[in-house]
Amino acid sequence: MADRPGTVALLGGGVIGAGWAARFALNGVDVRLYDPAPEAERTVEQVLANARRALGRLTLSPLPAEGTVTRVATPEEAVEGADFVQESAPEREELKRALLAAASRAAPAEVVFATSTSGLLPTRLQADMAHPERLTVGHPFNPVYLLPLVEVCGGDRTAPEAVERAAAIYRGLGMRPLVLRREIDGFVADRLLEALWREALWLVADDVATAEEVDAAISLGAGLRWACMGPFLTYRIAGGTAGMRHFMEHFGPALQLPWTKLTDVPELTDELLDKLLAQSDAQAAGRDVRDLERLRDDCLVSLIQGLRSHGVGAGEALAEYERALFAAPVEAPARDGDAPLRLHSTVVPPEWIDYNGHAHESTYLRVFGDTTDALLRHLGLDLDAGSSYYTVETHLSHLGQARAGDRLHTTTQLLGHDAKRLHLYHALYRTGDEALLATAEHMMLHVETGAQRASPAAPALLDRVERIARAHAGLPRPDRAGRAIGIPGPH
Amino acid sequence: MADRPGTVALLGGGVIGAGWAARFALNGVDVRLYDPAPEAERTVEQVLANARRALGRLTLSPLPAEGTVTRVATPEEAVEGADFVQESAPEREELKRALLAAASRAAPAEVVFATSTSGLLPTRLQADMAHPERLTVGHPFNPVYLLPLVEVCGGDRTAPEAVERAAAIYRGLGMRPLVLRREIDGFVADRLLEALWREALWLVADDVATAEEVDAAISLGAGLRWACMGPFLTYRIAGGTAGMRHFMEHFGPALQLPWTKLTDVPELTDELLDKLLAQSDAQAAGRDVRDLERLRDDCLVSLIQGLRSHGVGAGEALAEYERALFAAPVEAPARDGDAPLRLHSTVVPPEWIDYNGHAHESTYLRVFGDTTDALLRHLGLDLDAGSSYYTVETHLSHLGQARAGDRLHTTTQLLGHDAKRLHLYHALYRTGDEALLATAEHMMLHVETGAQRASPAAPALLDRVERIARAHAGLPRPDRAGRAIGIPGPH
Repeated sequence: MADRPGTVALLGGGVIGAGWAARFALNGVDVRLYDPAPEAERTVEQVLANARRALGRLTLSPLPAEGTVTRVATPEEAVEGADFVQESAPEREELKRALLAAASRAAPAEVVFATSTSGLLPTRLQADMAHPERLTVGHPFNPVYLLPLVEVCGGDRTAPEAVERAAAIYRGLGMRPLVLRREIDGFVADRLLEALWREALWLVADDVATAEEVDAAISLGAGLRWACMGPFLTYRIAGGTAGMRHFMEHFGPALQLPWTKLTDVPELTDELLDKLLAQSDAQAAGRDVRDLERLRDDCLVSLIQGLRSHGVGAGEALAEYERALFAAPVEAPARDGDAPLRLHSTVVPPEWIDYNGHAHESTYLRVFGDTTDALLRHLGLDLDAGSSYYTVETHLSHLGQARAGDRLHTTTQLLGHDAKRLHLYHALYRTGDEALLATAEHMMLHVETGAQRASPAAPALLDRVERIARAHAGLPRPDRAGRAIGIPGPH
Repeated sequence: MADRPGTVALLGGGVIGAGWAARFALNGVDVRLYDPAPEAERTVEQVLANARRALGRLTLSPLPAEGTVTRVATPEEAVEGADFVQESAPEREELKRALLAAASRAAPAEVVFATSTSGLLPTRLQADMAHPERLTVGHPFNPVYLLPLVEVCGGDRTAPEAVERAAAIYRGLGMRPLVLRREIDGFVADRLLEALWREALWLVADDVATAEEVDAAISLGAGLRWACMGPFLTYRIAGGTAGMRHFMEHFGPALQLPWTKLTDVPELTDELLDKLLAQSDAQAAGRDVRDLERLRDDCLVSLIQGLRSHGVGAGEALAEYERALFAAPVEAPARDGDAPLRLHSTVVPPEWIDYNGHAHESTYLRVFGDTTDALLRHLGLDLDAGSSYYTVETHLSHLGQARAGDRLHTTTQLLGHDAKRLHLYHALYRTGDEALLATAEHMMLHVETGAQRASPAAPALLDRVERIARAHAGLPRPDRAGRAIGIPGPH
């Protein structure tokens, strides 16, 4: 997270600008937003709400405290104190040029600017800027808070350092910058999308297929493959053991056939537009765009999670992002002398609530598990440490109920240890009324993560554990510690 | 499954023909395969092995007993006793016409034929057949055993019944037939794919991007969206609350810009071919095509499973397929006399996996919680019952690790009870190797859900509990029951 700016200026708060606001704020960056449109406030609120929901489902990793979003009245105010500027104004060259020029005159020379343009050339967009060498394209894809792709591309006058800085910032937000080799209209992704989209419009214009049928032809077939792998790797596999040469020799010539509408763009007549809109309405089947957005986001979350365990594409990006989140401390660091330790706090999200209206019993263990993870990080056991403590036994007591929106915090007491084991006791409180909701007792076993074998902790680690043990020696032993489950008496 | 044929003839056993062999055989259909190439046997074996692995991860539903695959020497032998014929010969018109003609002369008139052609016109392919009215296109997508899309399209002489029969058979295999309105070269999907592929080749030919960069531009962005929704629904959402009209008016004109290479197909010179192959090799990074196939399949399985819970696209197809499989249940519901009870099974979804690569500790409690819920339903305590048992204490032991895609099942033993309490013991096993991964002991308290107050169970409920208690009285008490957590000896 070293490249994360403290404050970012956003010029433009439409769907893309609001998506950036969400991507930055949920990664702990304060946002200063300029957009003259009155509806920008509402757009940002709605997109932020969607993004919070999506990110909460996407990852179990500890996210930084959310950054603030401040609406300002001018581009000049937006860049005040900002470490980075992202412009997402409507796709009109003169408008973007004027906005970038005004903001650049107010911002210190070292502040890098990126434009979200999906196809305008950075050489032209930087023309009127103060310090034009700091402008780069940073072209994201909707929804910005979920899709990892961002195309980065400098213009003729762009300094390589500006491209590097923007790419590093995007990587720190969990994105995957694709740094382009050359400035061309439409960059790379939109050229590919446009080619397919033009053909899709022809199919509808010629009544070969409806909008819904075109969508099915993509999402039930090649679309699934394209979420894992792009066309080149897919076709390499399709070539079988003979590989890419076989595929090209076999299927290359098919390109010479007159299948696609090579030479023309379908004219957007009123008739075609009416047909398209009617088919699109039929496909939406009464669901409004907010419903569809949530459906899209839920699907994207599941897809990205699905790819994570295979280390592929967007899943690999998520895995790397999570490793970075774990490396960054989120709370005021605990000290070994704290008795008990206070390591973790959270808010109950709505998806933890079960059909009874309170948090599912497993979510209490999730909070305790996150607390144990925080203790492991506190002990220096990050992902590269080569060893960790694994939970072998857990005893939970449920004493109260948490509801959606409750703020929770935990305390941790070390009840015992030896060379291989930690005996932990966590208590879970509602922050505010300090009601004790649940307790957890854990037996943890020290494991070499490579060999997956129990082993004694290294001396430095054991020293750290003993420092905590000494501080906790004076704490009273909790009543609930050491309990066994059973119904007393004969039954 | 009413439309499932008993035996199918497959003409051609390359990657696509072998994919059909797997799709049919794993759905309980016997396959008679004709392919003169000596390597067909091995291709079918390898594809079947991949397909078994993929389908085993894809669904927990009870699959029919696998059909047989019999290699035969002639097309005439292949159609002997077959209820349906699927031709997947190389994409050369004269070869396909001759093969379809020969096989059609040997097959009864009512047997429907489908061709896997990806773009040849059925009107031409049916020309030399006996009973040409029974030929339809059935164009699948690789891997045939996972992707649900199949394009169905008749020629000039095709009877509507042949199209309907083929579509019904494909639906019975869990596929989603897309019945085309018109016969055109390349049908629908390949026109879209070709448009994108042509543009991809231009980007590489012009050194704008490498094969790997083009793939990233798809798989990290639009590819993820296309796995959920096609371009039309995606763009409707991108239009925001103003919807499709706004999108078309806003972005339609961009099509008039000269972004894409409208007029030409890149010539496949030796130089371009060499460049492509070198970039493709770099991208494969030494992984052979079998490794890449398994990676692709694992990703597709996770994606389809991810979409299932959202009822979208390929996930919706899977859900319907599973409902059909469950319509003939193989497992009897649990009875009170079962000792122990077997109430719950599940598959570890990708979102349960934490940064260590195994299931988060709280997910084990989720499975145990679902098991307890299954017991409550078994006891008649549904949402309207007015009372339920709440967990007040839990003791977990972790004995092994679950990974994404593992099938799990639990057993439940009643250790004790009184008027207000149940003392439960669950064990969690990996299905297959039957490894014991975790155990849970729970103390449950009977609660009136309205008043949220502990109370004695009603006599009918208690009777039910006692019936289970009698059946479980003879079970040995588990070693791990009644444990307290602690490090033995002084420390």
